Amino acid sequence: MSEKALTYLQENNEILLKKLAAFLSIPSVSTDSIHKKDVGAAANFVADYLTEIGFETVEVQQTKGHPLVYGEWKGAGNDAPTVLFYGHYDVQPADPIELWDSEPFQPEIRDGRLYARGSSDDKGQVFMHLAVFEAFMKTEGKLPINVKVCVEGEEEIGSENLYEILEEKKEQFEADFAVISDSGMVDSGQPTILYGLKGFTGLEFTLTGPSSDLHSGIYGGAVRNPAMAMAHLLSSLKDDNEVIQVAGFYDGVEDLEQEERQLIKEVPGEDYSKSTGVKETVSEQGYTAKEHTMARPTLEINGLFGGYQGEGTKTIIPSSATAKLTCRLVPGQEPNRIQDLLVSHLENNVLSGVTLDIKREPLSAKAYKVDPNHPLIKKAASSYTKAFGKESVFVRMGGSIPVVEWIDSIYHMPVVLLGFGTPEDRLHSPNESFPLENFHKGMETLVHYWEAVKEI
Amino acid sequence: MSEKALTYLQENNEILLKKLAAFLSIPSVSTDSIHKKDVGAAANFVADYLTEIGFETVEVQQTKGHPLVYGEWKGAGNDAPTVLFYGHYDVQPADPIELWDSEPFQPEIRDGRLYARGSSDDKGQVFMHLAVFEAFMKTEGKLPINVKVCVEGEEEIGSENLYEILEEKKEQFEADFAVISDSGMVDSGQPTILYGLKGFTGLEFTLTGPSSDLHSGIYGGAVRNPAMAMAHLLSSLKDDNEVIQVAGFYDGVEDLEQEERQLIKEVPGEDYSKSTGVKETVSEQGYTAKEHTMARPTLEINGLFGGYQGEGTKTIIPSSATAKLTCRLVPGQEPNRIQDLLVSHLENNVLSGVTLDIKREPLSAKAYKVDPNHPLIKKAASSYTKAFGKESVFVRMGGSIPVVEWIDSIYHMPVVLLGFGTPEDRLHSPNESFPLENFHKGMETLVHYWEAVKEI
Repeated sequence: MSEKALTYLQENNEILLKKLAAFLSIPSVSTDSIHKKDVGAAANFVADYLTEIGFETVEVQQTKGHPLVYGEWKGAGNDAPTVLFYGHYDVQPADPIELWDSEPFQPEIRDGRLYARGSSDDKGQVFMHLAVFEAFMKTEGKLPINVKVCVEGEEEIGSENLYEILEEKKEQFEADFAVISDSGMVDSGQPTILYGLKGFTGLEFTLTGPSSDLHSGIYGGAVRNPAMAMAHLLSSLKDDNEVIQVAGFYDGVEDLEQEERQLIKEVPGEDYSKSTGVKETVSEQGYTAKEHTMARPTLEINGLFGGYQGEGTKTIIPSSATAKLTCRLVPGQEPNRIQDLLVSHLENNVLSGVTLDIKREPLSAKAYKVDPNHPLIKKAASSYTKAFGKESVFVRMGGSIPVVEWIDSIYHMPVVLLGFGTPEDRLHSPNESFPLENFHKGMETLVHYWEAVKEI
Repeated sequence: MSEKALTYLQENNEILLKKLAAFLSIPSVSTDSIHKKDVGAAANFVADYLTEIGFETVEVQQTKGHPLVYGEWKGAGNDAPTVLFYGHYDVQPADPIELWDSEPFQPEIRDGRLYARGSSDDKGQVFMHLAVFEAFMKTEGKLPINVKVCVEGEEEIGSENLYEILEEKKEQFEADFAVISDSGMVDSGQPTILYGLKGFTGLEFTLTGPSSDLHSGIYGGAVRNPAMAMAHLLSSLKDDNEVIQVAGFYDGVEDLEQEERQLIKEVPGEDYSKSTGVKETVSEQGYTAKEHTMARPTLEINGLFGGYQGEGTKTIIPSSATAKLTCRLVPGQEPNRIQDLLVSHLENNVLSGVTLDIKREPLSAKAYKVDPNHPLIKKAASSYTKAFGKESVFVRMGGSIPVVEWIDSIYHMPVVLLGFGTPEDRLHSPNESFPLENFHKGMETLVHYWEAVKEI
């Protein structure tokens, strides 16, 4: 029956792309409160689509934050397996807006790529699943298996309310396995199975000195400059060789086995100069960039600011300076413990003359790893190969998808990560885009996959 | 004849304050190009006032930047000395605007203080001179001495075009001595003679890594974080004890003689916790805050920024990070040499994986010192004492007034720094203000001084 669905997708290509464009036009930026309404509109878009497709149950579940869309179709019967499909309809902020070549929320196709915030992460990939469900229902009146859909609006802010919902509504969301398409391929056209994700924690801190900006000529020499104190504190977190200096940070981190180093070596290398524009890669002493990004923890400054940032010179001592930090964690690193270590490090290393205020990032995630030999994973690999005509590679990635760890810990069911993004997608950056070829081959992969997992 | 002038100033107090308020209402922010018109308006205000007073020559001289106002009155005759009065009508930006208790450009009197950007630095003090000239002309039809007035609009951006003008128009601006009121008293009601000013240099630098912000999960571990590289570079400039680590920075700096340390000790100490809100002062190892601010060089971060600065969390590696630095210099430190040393230090200490771009601050000033025993200085001290009823103290200060050094080097005439500001004025900060008492006693000081220097 997959042929009919595939044909349907080809014949309705134009209509589907128009519909996707409408979805991407909604600026559903979850981190910025001024976009609250837009986030709600994106939720309704998903709910309406599910109803249109013919899902029996469709709910827009309100949360303390942004709504969660739930859909259910049980027409495949009790003997057929049930999948929980998870995705998110919220997106990252578009700034710095001036670096976009086209409007972030006015989708535009250039050179075979669809440019828009969310085209790859994750609205585009959520839409592919919905379109495939539509194709099956319109051509066969049913889906190969029972489907539960969970599309949230808070992934980019750490899925603030999802954990509670997954715990409370266990029966509603429970399934035989979960499928998520919120990741990427290591290379365009290279089927990629994600078998590991990093954990996440972070914090923001502000150093305050004088109660207001001061004249640097009159007060320079009398007070500690908070911006300089921040430079000292930040530089104490990492040495020149990218080795994190926070006491205990690496405790419990398993050494990278030779076997896994080999596995990583076999993954086609990314051309970083092409995808990031850097002249040389820089990674932790003793590890390649590939090893560090996939399997070693990181600590990054996401942003910092203090004092005068306008045109020209302003001879002041700033009143305060602020920095935002996040870490990507590996198995063995408990997020709250790492956050505690960061807090202690800052408290123990701050210079005199300034006060330290720490805002702990409330959201966190444990790292996740799954057995690459599980039948559901193998079927994913073969479906990929059918569509893309290439053997799959197995990788771990630095991205954090808290829901993966939660589904694992609450439901103890395998999570299959079917990602169709590419290294050129510029997730979280200006000019985010998604290749149309992956849009089509990705939907083809999904059609094959749902057929393949009918019996497990 | 000073009595009449003094009476005039008392009787016209209300009118003068209203006029000053109109002057302060013009947002003449020289560093921000959107205020270009306002800067011009402030220049015209000064020119119109000089004409009104009865100056024979009044010119608004256009420059490559903001205009300079020149005025001349030679009615005192060839036997009387000629003074060059210098001041500036431009002001610092008002931001962070949200920290002001009243509008920065809507002057307001609270608790005996006039609150407005420029009320102390330097529009308020310029206005005092003009009002005193008005008082003499209105009551006597003449001034005690010949006066040349030079009020520029670029002091807060380093007097970009003034040096050239002073050199080219030597005959026009030449005088027997110069008087400047762009400084402050060490304490409210404490007459203060400034006999030394610091020099100035600076630069801005940007570290660029990836060509755009990157997903910290996907690229963390592969590229150098420019914000972290900046933290390392900034922290290398100063140690924890506020000792500047730039090689050669202190070369040629004369040791602080015991005699001068004593002089500094006699200056009433500022209550920094009151004027700046800091719990403890921090200064160069081996020097008190007073010694460091008055007589030791400084290096300050005036502002820095990079990456995400908005609400919430954004898990990126920033594409770039920028910092603005300025130094205050003492005799023996040639500004261009110090700037070269800073540039070399940055180039030699920048980490791999980022590119360093340096914008050298085009403006600079040499440090200045004058003999506190010069008769013109002594007369200033006694005029102060007449008005404020207190002996003057002699201090050096960290502020830089390039014009002082230029007048000295081009005209070889003594510069008398008659400042009426107070430590509570919050120059360059939110809620800048000026005490009305100093407005009145300052004008009284000037009346006495012009009388006192009739014969020199």
